[in-house]
Amino acid sequence: MSEAKKSIKNIVVIGGGTGSFTVLSGLKKYPHNLTAIVSMADDGGSTGELRDQLGVLPPGDIRQCLVALSEGDLMLRRAFNHRYGPKDGPFDGHSFGNLFISLFEQLTGNFDKALEAIHKILKLKGRVVPVTLDKVQLRAKLNNGVELEGEHQINISWLLSKFGIKKLFLNPQAKANPKALKAIVEADAIVIGPGNLYCSIIPNFLVEDISEAVQNSKAIKIYNCNLMTKYGHTDNFKVSDFVRVIEWYLGKGALDYITYSITKPLSAHLKEYSSEGEWVKLNGKHTEDKRYIGADLVSPKLYKQDPADKIKRTLIRHDPDKLAEVIISLLNNQGLALNS
Amino acid sequence: MSEAKKSIKNIVVIGGGTGSFTVLSGLKKYPHNLTAIVSMADDGGSTGELRDQLGVLPPGDIRQCLVALSEGDLMLRRAFNHRYGPKDGPFDGHSFGNLFISLFEQLTGNFDKALEAIHKILKLKGRVVPVTLDKVQLRAKLNNGVELEGEHQINISWLLSKFGIKKLFLNPQAKANPKALKAIVEADAIVIGPGNLYCSIIPNFLVEDISEAVQNSKAIKIYNCNLMTKYGHTDNFKVSDFVRVIEWYLGKGALDYITYSITKPLSAHLKEYSSEGEWVKLNGKHTEDKRYIGADLVSPKLYKQDPADKIKRTLIRHDPDKLAEVIISLLNNQGLALNS
Repeated sequence: MSEAKKSIKNIVVIGGGTGSFTVLSGLKKYPHNLTAIVSMADDGGSTGELRDQLGVLPPGDIRQCLVALSEGDLMLRRAFNHRYGPKDGPFDGHSFGNLFISLFEQLTGNFDKALEAIHKILKLKGRVVPVTLDKVQLRAKLNNGVELEGEHQINISWLLSKFGIKKLFLNPQAKANPKALKAIVEADAIVIGPGNLYCSIIPNFLVEDISEAVQNSKAIKIYNCNLMTKYGHTDNFKVSDFVRVIEWYLGKGALDYITYSITKPLSAHLKEYSSEGEWVKLNGKHTEDKRYIGADLVSPKLYKQDPADKIKRTLIRHDPDKLAEVIISLLNNQGLALNS
Repeated sequence: MSEAKKSIKNIVVIGGGTGSFTVLSGLKKYPHNLTAIVSMADDGGSTGELRDQLGVLPPGDIRQCLVALSEGDLMLRRAFNHRYGPKDGPFDGHSFGNLFISLFEQLTGNFDKALEAIHKILKLKGRVVPVTLDKVQLRAKLNNGVELEGEHQINISWLLSKFGIKKLFLNPQAKANPKALKAIVEADAIVIGPGNLYCSIIPNFLVEDISEAVQNSKAIKIYNCNLMTKYGHTDNFKVSDFVRVIEWYLGKGALDYITYSITKPLSAHLKEYSSEGEWVKLNGKHTEDKRYIGADLVSPKLYKQDPADKIKRTLIRHDPDKLAEVIISLLNNQGLALNS
């Protein structure tokens, strides 16, 4: 194998929509093979309505990853991301890309074939792979006996941190998409997150065989810790708390590296975000831990909530290029130079 | 100029949706340059709702011509033609392609730029050119003083043949799309119809400068007469009655050739269509007229009304290949061999 060929690595990104969009947008500028494995538990907003009305698989997170990796027509990418507003009558709140994906699923009767066609139309650099092709609902059993049904219900609930989660599970149990398992087996790097911990990241590991495949993979495993906590879900979480939850599913010590931001978001941004969550800090006892990679990762831009979007999104986000640079350095140097 | 180059001709097809779809589907198999000039007066069904809700230009007829000329992804073409049904909730009756075109118009704020982008995405063989980029409404003043407002109202009215049309006009008056005028000037052949006479064909000639441009063009002018009359509009029309109406706008004798079907549609088809109209025959006195080109033009297939489609469509249609063959023969041989 030539040196050039050897230097092309297989990178698998595991997550949901917004967070994976960010990390994929950065990573796509490198020559590596990208596979985005996407959670299929989403049932809120436009995606939820399409699931209800058309009986389709959730398109929303898939759509964001497709747009991130598209190298096709700029207008088509814009259209894919367009969300209809209240002035648009019956389409209010819907994302056109969601309609597109769902229609292709309806026409083919097969989500996998639909995605294959869309990959070509959007000229994808890399692949977007649903973690499962089964229709599932995310559920959370809390320690007080309450059971929350559906990703959206869990997402908007404030009870998770109040009572604690006894068990997160998919109903019915879901089989892994063979393409996802294959990508994990062949990966040189597995990149997890950033993303909504219980609603976007963990649902991937609830699919049969996925966490085992990650555990058994020889890839280096990098977790990109969220910049911000989410009140009601991850109140007072430090970086290590996120890691504890992830490794509860993957096995203790499964992560080779954890990236976190040593730069605090701008005060003005934190203030605007103050009802949602706060900056995630490193717990003092981990400052010597070689696995924890601190870097300046915050985007200087405050993302605006799209008024047509019925789902609340994280507005303080990673800078795609800075995040990708750290990931690529870890992949190339195994982090030795970085962790100084 | 080489012989090969000389043999590539510029063909302009003037019409609306369904009829132009048929003739373009046949003509696209030849190596000639195709331009479809499309009426922009449509305001019924999905198109009408989008005009009302989004304030866009009418996408429906444009869509049909785009699909006819597309050589792009098969799935995308199927999606463009897909019409949502009653099970699809708020999307019921809408064509996905209409949503696509209208969104591109919304995103660019410019129908012309939107179409340019869509041409690339659909890999068009040829071009689809709106006859005007102005927002217009078709109106009909009848001889009894009644004024019908809107293409859809006129289309479903039974009063036109009862009282006679005093005047068809666009409100407000519309300027021609310069691209349409240029295509007409450069045309070697201008092909008019088939199509709904008052609602799809004539509205093109109501746009300023269009009929003059056709009259002044050195192109051979071929009119494809409808196979069937439309009760309430063209009751008892013979081929020459259609020609009389067209030439009222283009000037007497403006048409070089008129194609009509010498083959009667199947009795079963005529029976199923019997509430809509009847087979258009040649008036005896034209049997010696060299301009009138009779051929076997009827498709053996009876088209089915899409139950999700709120607009009644012609179900007895031309065979695209037979029609194209006659047009190309007229273009190559100036009809000498055919008119035997």
